[in-house]
Amino acid sequence: MTTGVRRRMGVEERRQQLIAVALDLFSHRSPDEVSIDEIAAAAGISRPLVYHYFPGKMSLYEAALRRAAEDLAGRFVEPREGPLGARLLRVTGRYLDFVDEHGPGFSALMRGGPAVGSSATNALIDSVRQAAYEQILTHLGIARPPARLELVVRSWVSLAESTALIWLEGRRIPRRELEVQLVHDFAALLAVSAAYDEEMADILRGVLATEPVDGPFSELVARLIALAP
Amino acid sequence: MTTGVRRRMGVEERRQQLIAVALDLFSHRSPDEVSIDEIAAAAGISRPLVYHYFPGKMSLYEAALRRAAEDLAGRFVEPREGPLGARLLRVTGRYLDFVDEHGPGFSALMRGGPAVGSSATNALIDSVRQAAYEQILTHLGIARPPARLELVVRSWVSLAESTALIWLEGRRIPRRELEVQLVHDFAALLAVSAAYDEEMADILRGVLATEPVDGPFSELVARLIALAP
Repeated sequence: MTTGVRRRMGVEERRQQLIAVALDLFSHRSPDEVSIDEIAAAAGISRPLVYHYFPGKMSLYEAALRRAAEDLAGRFVEPREGPLGARLLRVTGRYLDFVDEHGPGFSALMRGGPAVGSSATNALIDSVRQAAYEQILTHLGIARPPARLELVVRSWVSLAESTALIWLEGRRIPRRELEVQLVHDFAALLAVSAAYDEEMADILRGVLATEPVDGPFSELVARLIALAP
Repeated sequence: MTTGVRRRMGVEERRQQLIAVALDLFSHRSPDEVSIDEIAAAAGISRPLVYHYFPGKMSLYEAALRRAAEDLAGRFVEPREGPLGARLLRVTGRYLDFVDEHGPGFSALMRGGPAVGSSATNALIDSVRQAAYEQILTHLGIARPPARLELVVRSWVSLAESTALIWLEGRRIPRRELEVQLVHDFAALLAVSAAYDEEMADILRGVLATEPVDGPFSELVARLIALAP
């Protein structure tokens, strides 16, 4: 809409425009602070016309969330090449980009509550978590994970979420440090599990075998050894 | 109510009885599967009488949740004596007892959704997380935590939650192992943070200084060293 010429949009085009406008507004403030009037104004159409495309704010919110979820799932995709630590670092960086771009909306969504905590939104959040979990298993090359690996990977996905949410409150830790820390946290949780289970120890050895000396995992191990009394 | 003699309960006594009955039902099934009729039957009173004490299921659910939250916060209290690892292990054990006792209700609550995800329930969940966070800081003897310590402790509290939720799905890992693993996860997240920050390294040294050779932290370090190639 950069020209002064208004043209009539098709139904699907208008729906997509409304979703984009809504996603932008829902990303920067809590959804309960965004009104349909505001969405209509930002899209340059009337309030009744918004309702023509979406029966209410909740359905528009869910559509915007679906688009955000697809965007995020797309960022999880990483070529299966090179050391695992570097791959996880790139994906974690893109995840934090997403969190950064959608900060207030991401916080409101993940903290739940009546404006955002519907069954549909919860199902969508779970589908993104599941996509992250499956991507990591794919990179590890493990199709049938033992219970302990499932726990490590899924609890790390949750740790990445909570770390991002806490970080968003005041951004008191440099963003780049946060990325590296999350990748290290993954290695640390894997190592804890490996300390008590031979199958997990094999998986850990497999991960470390691909690591170069200048990779994030090797650096962590060197620093931890230096720290020991 | 073990005798055959029915006596009239006082208002507060009846309220407390209804809360106890409701908490038991809400603990064992998802709240949206529990009806007021069922609560009335379990309490041995009529449905209208339940409404006399609580305006609706949501208010009774919230009262039950407040009682559960007080119970849980009570379990976080631990004498400030002895090594930190052993203290954290005892508290984590009591936390998992709670999760075990209230399994389905805990899952439904933490997964959110319309039946349980009100502003009041979310505020209550946050207050329990805050209580856990403050207890840990008290045990560490740190009144003004640096941003990195706040992140480690709060993200570990969230990790304990997600670990418990994943575990509840199929209880595929021995309960005792889960307790030890969570305590080790705390040490591991603290160590990762300490690897890159001198202030965190001091805090880690302080924690390890109180550890006996047979404590959970020392055992982890020994096992990890044995695992290294």
